[in-house]
Amino acid sequence: MSEFSHMNQQGRAKMVDITEKQTTHRTAKARSSIFVSDTIHDKIVDQSIEKGDVLSVGQIAGVMGAKQTANVIPMCHPLPLSGVDIQFTWKKASEGYELIFTVTVKTKGSTGVEMEALTAASITALTIYDMCKALDKGMVIGQTYLIEKTGGKSGDYHREDESE
Amino acid sequence: MSEFSHMNQQGRAKMVDITEKQTTHRTAKARSSIFVSDTIHDKIVDQSIEKGDVLSVGQIAGVMGAKQTANVIPMCHPLPLSGVDIQFTWKKASEGYELIFTVTVKTKGSTGVEMEALTAASITALTIYDMCKALDKGMVIGQTYLIEKTGGKSGDYHREDESE
Amino acid sequence: MSEFSHMNQQGRAKMVDITEKQTTHRTAKARSSIFVSDTIHDKIVDQSIEKGDVLSVGQIAGVMGAKQTANVIPMCHPLPLSGVDIQFTWKKASEGYELIFTVTVKTKGSTGVEMEALTAASITALTIYDMCKALDKGMVIGQTYLIEKTGGKSGDYHREDESE
Amino acid sequence: MSEFSHMNQQGRAKMVDITEKQTTHRTAKARSSIFVSDTIHDKIVDQSIEKGDVLSVGQIAGVMGAKQTANVIPMCHPLPLSGVDIQFTWKKASEGYELIFTVTVKTKGSTGVEMEALTAASITALTIYDMCKALDKGMVIGQTYLIEKTGGKSGDYHREDESE
Amino acid sequence: MSEFSHMNQQGRAKMVDITEKQTTHRTAKARSSIFVSDTIHDKIVDQSIEKGDVLSVGQIAGVMGAKQTANVIPMCHPLPLSGVDIQFTWKKASEGYELIFTVTVKTKGSTGVEMEALTAASITALTIYDMCKALDKGMVIGQTYLIEKTGGKSGDYHREDESE
Amino acid sequence: MSEFSHMNQQGRAKMVDITEKQTTHRTAKARSSIFVSDTIHDKIVDQSIEKGDVLSVGQIAGVMGAKQTANVIPMCHPLPLSGVDIQFTWKKASEGYELIFTVTVKTKGSTGVEMEALTAASITALTIYDMCKALDKGMVIGQTYLIEKTGGKSGDYHREDESE
Repeated sequence: MSEFSHMNQQGRAKMVDITEKQTTHRTAKARSSIFVSDTIHDKIVDQSIEKGDVLSVGQIAGVMGAKQTANVIPMCHPLPLSGVDIQFTWKKASEGYELIFTVTVKTKGSTGVEMEALTAASITALTIYDMCKALDKGMVIGQTYLIEKTGGKSGDYHREDESE
Repeated sequence: MSEFSHMNQQGRAKMVDITEKQTTHRTAKARSSIFVSDTIHDKIVDQSIEKGDVLSVGQIAGVMGAKQTANVIPMCHPLPLSGVDIQFTWKKASEGYELIFTVTVKTKGSTGVEMEALTAASITALTIYDMCKALDKGMVIGQTYLIEKTGGKSGDYHREDESE
Repeated sequence: MSEFSHMNQQGRAKMVDITEKQTTHRTAKARSSIFVSDTIHDKIVDQSIEKGDVLSVGQIAGVMGAKQTANVIPMCHPLPLSGVDIQFTWKKASEGYELIFTVTVKTKGSTGVEMEALTAASITALTIYDMCKALDKGMVIGQTYLIEKTGGKSGDYHREDESE
Repeated sequence: MSEFSHMNQQGRAKMVDITEKQTTHRTAKARSSIFVSDTIHDKIVDQSIEKGDVLSVGQIAGVMGAKQTANVIPMCHPLPLSGVDIQFTWKKASEGYELIFTVTVKTKGSTGVEMEALTAASITALTIYDMCKALDKGMVIGQTYLIEKTGGKSGDYHREDESE
Repeated sequence: MSEFSHMNQQGRAKMVDITEKQTTHRTAKARSSIFVSDTIHDKIVDQSIEKGDVLSVGQIAGVMGAKQTANVIPMCHPLPLSGVDIQFTWKKASEGYELIFTVTVKTKGSTGVEMEALTAASITALTIYDMCKALDKGMVIGQTYLIEKTGGKSGDYHREDESE
Repeated sequence: MSEFSHMNQQGRAKMVDITEKQTTHRTAKARSSIFVSDTIHDKIVDQSIEKGDVLSVGQIAGVMGAKQTANVIPMCHPLPLSGVDIQFTWKKASEGYELIFTVTVKTKGSTGVEMEALTAASITALTIYDMCKALDKGMVIGQTYLIEKTGGKSGDYHREDESE
């Protein structure tokens, strides 16, 4: 069975050695969301049609957040990202709406970009919360997870219950 | 009805003016979690008892993440935080375990620390994912939300369905 | 005559001591611009009407840049900004258009926010250049200067040739 | 005609995918300046001869600013810079002097370093302003633009009116 | 006996709560050094007389490092520094020279600036090493410690064996 | 004799051009330490056995510090690190104990990682000081130096008096 790869021989954390890993094309796609009231949904959509700003701020924050991943996740390797894209989808929830973010990150590097995709998704969610919290502090950030990754020795990963 | 407070007259984002707001004691408590398999639970707990590292790395990342909030959330005001604390709780899930993080942030400042608490909780979750992802890429970060805030003109907030 | 305030007795740079300065309300307004072709003007305006994004990215970058001022300007004091706003104005140039940015920054602090306003204006200009440079690398960032400042012992400043 | 390359299909900003671009040697040279009074010119020059510090601080800030480019320009790709150099030239202006900065940046990478050169030039200008603003808040940062770039599929660029 | 103040009830690290501490004037003075060969000493001094650059880069890095303290020391509180100054002294060593840095940091804040002074001293030392390492990789950074602190409830501290 | 490699033709600092240097495997090992009282030694060791936290925080800070090297050392090239590891050793001192940190950093890059190893060692030392300073402000950070480096055109380096 595989072991925790971030622990050194003294049982403490280290940044694992990837010197011998191949530089290959790698992608990761992650997802997060935020549940908002009808009022907030309507206001974001109206803004979106007229000026697009709440989603713009969230999206820009997500892209910039992807670039900060190795600065905020302690054992994460710094990587020169080659592309970041964030898509938004609205879904009617039992109460109000769920705004879903799908983040795709690409690199040519020695390790995967799963953390970059997940971090960008989380920062996008936090930013949407920040932009709308004057209206409602009860918004909930939904589940955040990896949808798929490609490239690297450990092979591709596709989440089973994800039909996207 | 209150309006989006981050939009300027041209309909674009700005950092809202808090110059006239009072400097008061403020706190915020937020929560996030991560769902892990029995195997990962056992390994974290074993580490926790022997060396405590997976949780330590998550906790330290969360505290440091709180300090990066205004750098990653575009319209968030920079604030001199006066205290950050993160507590962990294990809960048996339908499959595996849910590891819950409760973050408390304090400041003496002109605006609240909700974003700092939420950001610390998210960074903790992302870090735990990073530490364990060699074992399972299917871990899911659970819902992330504000439990309570105190201080400031808008008054206190306590999430209703939260009994903590 | 006043002396260079950043030099210490050994003739090298230092961050000057502002411990004894009063904490007062302070504002600064700065201006920069970028000269773009008719084609780029039309495309930004079309985007602006439909989705507003080029200006949004510039504006968000400017607000975030204001918060990075003390990290990039070596002898600049870190300050907890209380508000940042950026306005855009189009002006017909002899060839193409000049897009003018006016940045207002506010704080309650011990020193002024001139550098924060100027830095935000410059970062906005650089970001607009970055967003449009695939169309034309010949764009020129216009003159960047302080329009006015208020607060602090040195008194208010208003640029003479500025009628805004 | 080429399109805005930072917009995704939903009309919002993204970091464009450069995964397929070649890793080649690339350079960019940019220029900015600051207009100062005779008094400030004399004091900088005196310092420069004796201790060189105003220019030193500006230069060091510019080099460090080049490394922060992808952190402050939202859609800019992070790049491992291989060299940064900044040269200063004094030029008599109609009133006082113009201090001109010429920045050269080099990399072996998948995209150009125009933004790094322009950002370094702007940060140098802002820093010189900061160092001298106790003497005169009316200094003006001059036009900032790209002089030339080499490398990459889009070919070389040389600004026409630039004889350097 | 006082306890480790960074540990929470679960035995893990936290940023201790300083909300109730007084905002007072505080200073800290720290010291570090680097041992260099005669050749490097001569070259730094020659530069110092002519252009002053090795020490300038070290000094500027130290001031900027002071501002990064709370970003690199996990449990350190962010503080708005009000002044940073670094002085250099040469001392003949048994072999070559010791270049001593004395850093003074000031703030009006709720906690001390010992870490800022120590961090600035260390970053200065690392930078001098970096500037000279092409000549000799065997340079040694000397002992780094606090000389004195003033302000705050825990009272003043003066290192006994320090006559400065 | 080799010259200072960070000075440009105007006698000021620049980031030297490494465009033509080979991308090879490179390692560096550095060392620092902190002298602590018996009381602090006992408390760290007790923590270490029970929860390991003082050393954990130091270690995590060191790994994260390695990634910040090019942001705090002005003329240092940004490098994508491929591995960082920190080991702790206790040694009885004439009074109290010396806690020694040995840092190993690896990369596949165009320049060495000496600065990253030295910076990680220094940040670890500063963090241990910060964690324990409530007990004793008189702790001294010991000598900090390079133990060895491998890779690159300038060849390997091994410190002579180091038997590790």
